[in-house]
Amino acid sequence: MHKLKDSVRAFRWVSKPKKKLFVLDQLLLPNKEKWIPCVNHKQVAACIKDMNVRGAPAIGCVAAYGLALAAVEKKFNSPDALLAYVVQAKETLAKTRPTAVNLFWALERMMGFLALALAQAGSGKDSVQKIQKNLEDEAVRIFDEDLAANFHMGKLGAALFPNNAVILTHCNTGSLATSGWGTALGVIRTAYQLGKIKKVLVDETRPYLQGARLTAWELSKDGIPYELITDNMAAHIMKTEKVDAAIVGSDRISAQGDVANKIGTYGVAVLCKHHGIPFYAAAPTSTIDLKMKRGEDIPIEERSVREVTHIKNFSIAPAGAVARHPAFDVTPRELVTAVITEKGVARPPSLETIAQLFRPAAQKQAALSSI
Amino acid sequence: MHKLKDSVRAFRWVSKPKKKLFVLDQLLLPNKEKWIPCVNHKQVAACIKDMNVRGAPAIGCVAAYGLALAAVEKKFNSPDALLAYVVQAKETLAKTRPTAVNLFWALERMMGFLALALAQAGSGKDSVQKIQKNLEDEAVRIFDEDLAANFHMGKLGAALFPNNAVILTHCNTGSLATSGWGTALGVIRTAYQLGKIKKVLVDETRPYLQGARLTAWELSKDGIPYELITDNMAAHIMKTEKVDAAIVGSDRISAQGDVANKIGTYGVAVLCKHHGIPFYAAAPTSTIDLKMKRGEDIPIEERSVREVTHIKNFSIAPAGAVARHPAFDVTPRELVTAVITEKGVARPPSLETIAQLFRPAAQKQAALSSI
Repeated sequence: MHKLKDSVRAFRWVSKPKKKLFVLDQLLLPNKEKWIPCVNHKQVAACIKDMNVRGAPAIGCVAAYGLALAAVEKKFNSPDALLAYVVQAKETLAKTRPTAVNLFWALERMMGFLALALAQAGSGKDSVQKIQKNLEDEAVRIFDEDLAANFHMGKLGAALFPNNAVILTHCNTGSLATSGWGTALGVIRTAYQLGKIKKVLVDETRPYLQGARLTAWELSKDGIPYELITDNMAAHIMKTEKVDAAIVGSDRISAQGDVANKIGTYGVAVLCKHHGIPFYAAAPTSTIDLKMKRGEDIPIEERSVREVTHIKNFSIAPAGAVARHPAFDVTPRELVTAVITEKGVARPPSLETIAQLFRPAAQKQAALSSI
Repeated sequence: MHKLKDSVRAFRWVSKPKKKLFVLDQLLLPNKEKWIPCVNHKQVAACIKDMNVRGAPAIGCVAAYGLALAAVEKKFNSPDALLAYVVQAKETLAKTRPTAVNLFWALERMMGFLALALAQAGSGKDSVQKIQKNLEDEAVRIFDEDLAANFHMGKLGAALFPNNAVILTHCNTGSLATSGWGTALGVIRTAYQLGKIKKVLVDETRPYLQGARLTAWELSKDGIPYELITDNMAAHIMKTEKVDAAIVGSDRISAQGDVANKIGTYGVAVLCKHHGIPFYAAAPTSTIDLKMKRGEDIPIEERSVREVTHIKNFSIAPAGAVARHPAFDVTPRELVTAVITEKGVARPPSLETIAQLFRPAAQKQAALSSI
């Protein structure tokens, strides 16, 4: 059994003496490790929008901390004053990025919790302090639950890999994209701990190069063998070498199991189908949007084309080049072998297998025994 | 009918007062246009190896000029002395890049021509001069024939596109990759002249970015509408928008019609098959290697991984990152709708349809009428 350091974190919450969220600036990785201190929700929103922090589960956690910060940014004379301000902060945080559903999930959970706290609270200054404390506790719980989910997902997913496995992954789904450990990369980490990984093929993931800059960096830190490839090498390697599975994370999974994820994911899934290679998506159930049935309806963020025509400030295209930048794509469930969550594996993904994940354990057992 | 400038050239031959080959340094494009003057074959070989000039047909032309230069680099007292030197020069030029067959084709053609010239020549100084002149003429003929082939290929290929077509292309196959006009991009140019092109989708083509740096630049210069995309966006755009065909060039086509081309081509072909989109390869018959039946046997050049981990001198991966760099891949003929050459269209490519291209016109006619 390999021992992993798992020392990387995308953000750190400090409670005392003053509440602060430190965000690791992923735009500077792997060349520089710099932490951005956030003392208010607007700074947090800017970090999400500018992609200093990215990765659907990490965005959810950070947004929750953003609301916890909003609740202590000003002096509030009453719980209602606090509520009014936090509602505004929620709007600001919600507007940062449209595709990842964990952002909205975390904000809704925090707001639901706030509503409950308000209903139970009195109207005095003590109540304000109590609500502030409760909001912080809830953000920490979201973090803790995400971390626990990743470890559990790791076990469920690793069981699907053969021994001596060569696994391809796209984008970054590791500690940097989550509370820690990772979703798809968490599965790879756990499988490596169990001695099942021969090597990881890392798509560089243009245009933002999350694979080259972040995943290769995380794997280097943990000593897990990997090979970095340009996205367009995947097909050639699938044809000429042994690739046992591809595994990716997700920014939103529809109720019927379609997987929205970083641009390029859908292409990997098509290649896997052509070569008879299993294609897995690993994500916490907070990534599943039960309100949205079809993947086609998931909004796809269009980002600046400068991110395509330039690498840092270096131009790689002629001046005035016309370019495109859809930041995500959707893989229809037919191409997804299984969706791996902390609550179980939906295999193959469908309205039924996805719904099954949300049933209490007792009901699941009953449903299983009735088959 | 659109009028195109077609002003771009990858290299220019100057005969007087001193023979020189000027090579446009494609490594500096699109930011800078700098010409490298070559007065000997070693400079030409360096330009090919370092990819100042690239593209299979362009490499063939340039190598032929390299031999013409070798023949005048020194004072030769006899045709035999010239032959001995040119044989060495041929070895040097042949060692530059292994995948593109046009290089070997052009060198063999020049050497065959030299053998013939020697057989006919006397032994004096006059004979040396005559051979030198003949070699230069043959290199110019290779250039002229390639250019004529491209225009003809353009017509044959453009006929295969529908009106108002959206065409995806990979790498650079334009004037910069050939004697001029281009192979796959030549077909696009001709189709644009005929008013059939709505827009061109340009794969950026990592790691060397020939699409972003060269194809987008050529299309900009000619005013042909295009959109630059990262390689991994192609699948998403094929699924969500109208793409009528993909067309690529080739570095070597096997006798049964398998297509070796820039890394990423095979992935595009798989995506085309999945989405029911025709996939074409356009190349002069000098790209077809009749001695090699199966695409799997084509040697694939492995280039420096620094070209993957760095863009110019900027590192995009952690220090010491392990990376891969196969520079080409092979698309099996099953995925190729047609091979377009200056001698006709092999549709679908097979031993028979490819062999057919090499028959004299009269035989072709007879074969057709017997069907």
